[in-house]
Amino acid sequence: MNKINISEKFGLFSEEWTPKILAESNGQLVKIAKGTGELVWHIHENEDELFIVFKGQLTLQLRNGDVVLNAGEMYVVPKGVEHCPTAEPDTHFMMVEPSSTEHTGEHQSEVTVSSEKQEWI
Amino acid sequence: MNKINISEKFGLFSEEWTPKILAESNGQLVKIAKGTGELVWHIHENEDELFIVFKGQLTLQLRNGDVVLNAGEMYVVPKGVEHCPTAEPDTHFMMVEPSSTEHTGEHQSEVTVSSEKQEWI
Repeated sequence: MNKINISEKFGLFSEEWTPKILAESNGQLVKIAKGTGELVWHIHENEDELFIVFKGQLTLQLRNGDVVLNAGEMYVVPKGVEHCPTAEPDTHFMMVEPSSTEHTGEHQSEVTVSSEKQEWI
Repeated sequence: MNKINISEKFGLFSEEWTPKILAESNGQLVKIAKGTGELVWHIHENEDELFIVFKGQLTLQLRNGDVVLNAGEMYVVPKGVEHCPTAEPDTHFMMVEPSSTEHTGEHQSEVTVSSEKQEWI
């Protein structure tokens, strides 16, 4: 593989809440996404989900409180914990999660991007 | 868990080539480290190793060429690929790797920090 420049990769797409895959490591995928506003409440029953924010502000709403992440901050949503990401305009973030992880967990909606449709960039 | 501010965590230690653990996710550990100069050639037979550079320049020497990573760049060293990290002074980087990954692979030396001695911060 070639090295990956993360900010260059963010420059290659504009869709929001549509994860793009950068790399695979030990069965987990490194993805980046942009977001504005609210995604949807969902649960990943079997997968922890690591978030790192690169730009803007990503709030991980949990049922027992919000985790507000600014650029340079990270958080792991443990498996089985219901969450709903919300983002300030043009927020950029990275996720590391198993390749089996569904975008919006058990909750399928019009915003869901199935794993098969998540592209490598 | 609380959210993690990555640059604050880099401010908590000064040792070089001594990974500090920030988080666990799906059996993998998120670690940060500082480095200057050369570590040692080694192989992780069973684990891919993801590197993301936050400051400075980290060169992953491979037997078939160097991968030079500046801040904002990442690379996955595949399992079984011999490598030797070298770094410009005060380089800061993150690694994501299984908890089973030994610091310098099969190569034990005076610079090796065993998994049991890698601290959470």
